[in-house]
Amino acid sequence: MPLGEKKLIQQIQRAARGGAAVVKGIGDDCAVLRVPGGHEVLITTDFSIEKVHFRRDWHPPEVVGWRCLTRGLSDIAAMGGEPLAAFLSLAVAGDVPQKWVDRFLRGLLELAKEFGISLAGGDTAQSAGGIQADIVVVGSVPRGKAVLRSGAKVGDAIYVTGELGGAAAELGRRREAKSVGNLGRAFRASRDSKCYSRPQARVAVGRWLRERGVASAMIDLSDGLSTDLEHICQESHVGAEIDAEAIPRAWVGKEAVGLDLALHGGDDYELLFTSGAAVPGEITGVRVTCIGRVGRFAGMRLVVDGKARRLKAAGWEHFRAR
Amino acid sequence: MPLGEKKLIQQIQRAARGGAAVVKGIGDDCAVLRVPGGHEVLITTDFSIEKVHFRRDWHPPEVVGWRCLTRGLSDIAAMGGEPLAAFLSLAVAGDVPQKWVDRFLRGLLELAKEFGISLAGGDTAQSAGGIQADIVVVGSVPRGKAVLRSGAKVGDAIYVTGELGGAAAELGRRREAKSVGNLGRAFRASRDSKCYSRPQARVAVGRWLRERGVASAMIDLSDGLSTDLEHICQESHVGAEIDAEAIPRAWVGKEAVGLDLALHGGDDYELLFTSGAAVPGEITGVRVTCIGRVGRFAGMRLVVDGKARRLKAAGWEHFRAR
Repeated sequence: MPLGEKKLIQQIQRAARGGAAVVKGIGDDCAVLRVPGGHEVLITTDFSIEKVHFRRDWHPPEVVGWRCLTRGLSDIAAMGGEPLAAFLSLAVAGDVPQKWVDRFLRGLLELAKEFGISLAGGDTAQSAGGIQADIVVVGSVPRGKAVLRSGAKVGDAIYVTGELGGAAAELGRRREAKSVGNLGRAFRASRDSKCYSRPQARVAVGRWLRERGVASAMIDLSDGLSTDLEHICQESHVGAEIDAEAIPRAWVGKEAVGLDLALHGGDDYELLFTSGAAVPGEITGVRVTCIGRVGRFAGMRLVVDGKARRLKAAGWEHFRAR
Repeated sequence: MPLGEKKLIQQIQRAARGGAAVVKGIGDDCAVLRVPGGHEVLITTDFSIEKVHFRRDWHPPEVVGWRCLTRGLSDIAAMGGEPLAAFLSLAVAGDVPQKWVDRFLRGLLELAKEFGISLAGGDTAQSAGGIQADIVVVGSVPRGKAVLRSGAKVGDAIYVTGELGGAAAELGRRREAKSVGNLGRAFRASRDSKCYSRPQARVAVGRWLRERGVASAMIDLSDGLSTDLEHICQESHVGAEIDAEAIPRAWVGKEAVGLDLALHGGDDYELLFTSGAAVPGEITGVRVTCIGRVGRFAGMRLVVDGKARRLKAAGWEHFRAR
């Protein structure tokens, strides 16, 4: 059944639930949010575009919806913030089945529920072709306490949460599966491996680090370690040296992913942060690993077998139509 | 020249200027905004999609950029709020010339400057085809003081700012011009008529009404009087009666626009509000006209030559590819 815009609005309206922060949700000119006293407002927007960020024939709709919201939540986590509400702008072509939208919203709302936030508004439109979703997540953080990318200091150690490269490896497997058969089935069959299909935004870890003033700089790993580390280096005007051996690599099946995927594979949504303080090996149940150090030199280095070589940002390429 | 995504990010970054409310703008995981003490946060998102909301061969890029931001500012106005910052998510296909983006941003930033707000963030992506822009405007309003659609009371009078139907009439003329020649030139030639190309968000009027507690319900006229009035009726659970003769019609050239355009033409971005108090005929330099009254009956009525007939919502249809 082709999808009417009005129906889409009603559907999103029904799906939306007022959260604690939402004074007025969908149904007025603006949403009205209440921010805790003494807090600043965090805002992040992320596009998820068909044939660029996802492909309808590769990705189950629930996965697209979940990942769409994860991108925003992960940005809030990287500031040490608390998510308050999400806004979805969704443009859908007339030939997109109603069922696709139902399943997309189901994935998105499943994740929203996990984080106790509501869909407080957005916009809907008929697209001129394909699907375009823009997700806005609004959060808050105590005044002056947001953890920026610009605070890394020479001598700080560099840490990551979780394991890296799993999402990129899982996506590679899906690409192979697609070339031999039913990808949707491949996705469903490997539900045990959720790096790619159900990434976890590290909101609790980010909050823990911010509350204790432990992280000097922080970013989330959406584009890949090398690319995101470069952002910290540039914003903090420092260099970084990473020990290849120290990078916690994800396991897919019976083996760890290759170094390239751990260094450059995107979509992990782990946190990368720097600290001059003592950092435990586990925070809120999530593994935390020291992978290197901040230096006075320019650019990034990778130490392999005791030898340092130049590390270039070579982050994950989006999912372009080919 | 085809447009690289990186270049686009840098361009938006350069264009962005920190406003008073922006603690941290582009260049981190989230923007950080400071909201005045005792205020709630207003958020609105609006898509502007090529072939749906605009056409590249009909609309000069500056007009698309200006109108894109107007949609958000007008939503803030309709709550009686103050705009604080804007966020732009922009997806552009590889074949869109750099110059188009330059001119689009020029139009958008010209308006942002008028309202003293900055572009504090957003997202960029290569689109799979055409141009998709999603604008987010964040504002604030004193706690509990937002003017909602739901506050209209039986006995209230109904008011509009400015004149109606001008944007729809101007668009119609452009459509004709397109069929006979150069539309860009037609747009430029009629710079005196700015209803469509440079609509004014009524932020000052909205603020005036909110500060004095004059408006019981308010909405901005983006979809057309009949459609937007219906939203107030539905949210307030009231009926509305409009006097056809009282509707202030825009003048295009030497004649007033037809009643149909004034009733159903969209894109005027005037304010429609209800009030039980005394309302002056001009607020912050903008004409204000009483056009009807709120009643206990269901639905909407239009009084023509002393006879009331049913008024149906027949708002402006978006600008679809044909």
